[in-house]
Amino acid sequence: MTKLSINSERMRADFDALAQFGSTGDGGVQRPSLSETHLAARRWLREQIEKVGMEFRIDGAGNHSAFLKSPNYQLPITKTLLVGSHTDSVPYGGRFDGALGVVAALEVLRVLKENNIELSMNLEAMDFTDEEGTLVGLLGSSAVGGHLRAEHLQKPRGGRDAFEAGLARAGLTEQGMLSVERPARSLAGYLELHIEQGNRLINAQKNIGIVTAIVGIMAYRLKFIGRADHAGTTSMQDRRDAGQGASAFTLAAREIVLKDFPRCVANVGKMEFAPGGFNIVPASVVVSLEFRAPSDDEIVQLDHALIERAKLEAERFNLGLEIEFLGKHSPTPMSQVAQKAFADACDELGLSHMPLVSGAGHDAQSLAHLCPVGMIFVPSVNGASHSPREFTEWCDCVNGANVLLQAALRMAGGAA
Amino acid sequence: MTKLSINSERMRADFDALAQFGSTGDGGVQRPSLSETHLAARRWLREQIEKVGMEFRIDGAGNHSAFLKSPNYQLPITKTLLVGSHTDSVPYGGRFDGALGVVAALEVLRVLKENNIELSMNLEAMDFTDEEGTLVGLLGSSAVGGHLRAEHLQKPRGGRDAFEAGLARAGLTEQGMLSVERPARSLAGYLELHIEQGNRLINAQKNIGIVTAIVGIMAYRLKFIGRADHAGTTSMQDRRDAGQGASAFTLAAREIVLKDFPRCVANVGKMEFAPGGFNIVPASVVVSLEFRAPSDDEIVQLDHALIERAKLEAERFNLGLEIEFLGKHSPTPMSQVAQKAFADACDELGLSHMPLVSGAGHDAQSLAHLCPVGMIFVPSVNGASHSPREFTEWCDCVNGANVLLQAALRMAGGAA
Repeated sequence: MTKLSINSERMRADFDALAQFGSTGDGGVQRPSLSETHLAARRWLREQIEKVGMEFRIDGAGNHSAFLKSPNYQLPITKTLLVGSHTDSVPYGGRFDGALGVVAALEVLRVLKENNIELSMNLEAMDFTDEEGTLVGLLGSSAVGGHLRAEHLQKPRGGRDAFEAGLARAGLTEQGMLSVERPARSLAGYLELHIEQGNRLINAQKNIGIVTAIVGIMAYRLKFIGRADHAGTTSMQDRRDAGQGASAFTLAAREIVLKDFPRCVANVGKMEFAPGGFNIVPASVVVSLEFRAPSDDEIVQLDHALIERAKLEAERFNLGLEIEFLGKHSPTPMSQVAQKAFADACDELGLSHMPLVSGAGHDAQSLAHLCPVGMIFVPSVNGASHSPREFTEWCDCVNGANVLLQAALRMAGGAA
Repeated sequence: MTKLSINSERMRADFDALAQFGSTGDGGVQRPSLSETHLAARRWLREQIEKVGMEFRIDGAGNHSAFLKSPNYQLPITKTLLVGSHTDSVPYGGRFDGALGVVAALEVLRVLKENNIELSMNLEAMDFTDEEGTLVGLLGSSAVGGHLRAEHLQKPRGGRDAFEAGLARAGLTEQGMLSVERPARSLAGYLELHIEQGNRLINAQKNIGIVTAIVGIMAYRLKFIGRADHAGTTSMQDRRDAGQGASAFTLAAREIVLKDFPRCVANVGKMEFAPGGFNIVPASVVVSLEFRAPSDDEIVQLDHALIERAKLEAERFNLGLEIEFLGKHSPTPMSQVAQKAFADACDELGLSHMPLVSGAGHDAQSLAHLCPVGMIFVPSVNGASHSPREFTEWCDCVNGANVLLQAALRMAGGAA
């Protein structure tokens, strides 16, 4: 038998079709989780699954999947190997992030089905809900992983109103979200293909990055609280201008990372000024802060340094400070078994590879306590990501999908 | 005949009634120009005017007024003396700013009417549209003053969508706005009572501030333009973070004024981040900048210093910069005739007074080229303004209204 490989043209057609949902016309997509465009993309995905006679599944967290049963399906010991990614995007994001992994996972199952490959375990191609966190973050995979708690849904980082609106649009409920945990005994692993979102593979001229760990991430909302005053009649000395504290912190956060945390990053993605008039001294500014570190030590120390600095800047400008902790994902090592399956697949296919730490969070981290998880990256041109400029050469996408296919065959334990 | 004076209880009832429109429950009001709450307040005002048998007028700019005809009304040389202020508020503003001047002007006309005082000129109590500039700024008075041009309405500082929505709600048109200019020969003057919005009267323990000049104001929208990138996978060195330039400028604007422009003020009232995700490096930040100076020299120099600094900070963080000039009001001296009428009225009423520069812009500046204009201030407790904490003792409000009444009698040239 010739070696199985994915159908490049068919996967390309899927990729291009998916990129039309929420297309911003500049190569990017606007497909926030559970938005109308996201739900339309998911209806399209369901059609593709059913069109080829595969079983479509949806769980209480809205996770969509194609399910390929093993001949051993009836045996209680038969596990399921997950492959997948997500179809949601950040606001005005790119068309590769998540989407590539979903169409590749779908293609892997289609190839196995059309070649009548019978495996000793089930395969399931997943589209996890809200990986990007426009609502909660890693929502669907956290639900499957059993991390999700009712309190996480009370103050979602995208705001409670947006979250409730999304649930209503998708016909989901909080109760449903909290009831989709899967037992460890049911899962054989989780494998994901993703774009690198950085420029290390391009610079090193390697085909495939094999992820060794996913960085830890923490997020806060920091509210600097001053006093609304007339911006014409209040002297500069008398002001308690919340914008000054927020601005000083934003500059300081960058400087702290550059100076003391070379392996880390920090981002102030947004400031919300209130009341927001040209002629009113800002009474409050809410700063959206997120930072990442590859080790437990670094994330603890960076957390401390940033929060202490926020307090200092608030004090300096005579402001109050409300610190709202939004969540923490600890750094997550990838499974050795999955890393070896990917490396062996690359070697078999003659593709160069290198180990990488993922600077982005991914659904794999939600499942790492349940089963062996692994990820591969393919090169991102110019390292661009979360942007319409996101781009990966199609041959690299195909390479990644073939590595995913071969690694899945290894992890799935061969023929039944 | 006993000296005329305003009816404190009646004016208080009006003041309290007006403060209910858009009340935020904490003493403040949310009554942006041409919002539903603002239009409701204006319907109430119209009822008060018509209830006492005065003539209600509205012009193409939406300016509302009570009109008290002189017995000389038919004579072509008979002028009109305007008194008034505005009923719109800044977002989450106070209940005194503007509202006090409107209820005082209404009360002045009511007192004259109920006492059958016949003057040689008409009196008109004005509520000017959009003094605060949530849409355009000094909109109604600029229209009356003939400054308003079609192009001013194309890029209103509150945004074109908000402006169009306001016009639609109020049943106004741009054409109507541009057709309400009044000839200089028709106007005898404009007098306004307002709260100080600062703490000079309180500190000096004076009853009345007589305004000598209104500061000049300039406003810009500065757009710092970076690049959207993934905030986890893009190194700190590789970022073009628009938030860094905007923050550095915001800190610098304050420092420039404190160091080199002691008689001036500057405010960054808002920053708008795009795309705004926690995990996306900000691609652009739009900074709302406003600054004020009491003389032509100072406003020109401060303008130059701020814009040069914005360019420098953009360059420092490898950002683009789009500079959108939103408008300039030059410093405006008040009429000597009006200042004398106010001073004589204070002296007659036994009230202490002092000259003041107004740090805020007011409708008087739109009319200064047409007729003698003048303003008085009454003390603001703690200097608070554009805030729910805005407060003036009621006895000071009454003092101000009585000075307005007596000065209006002087300016109106006594009995017909």
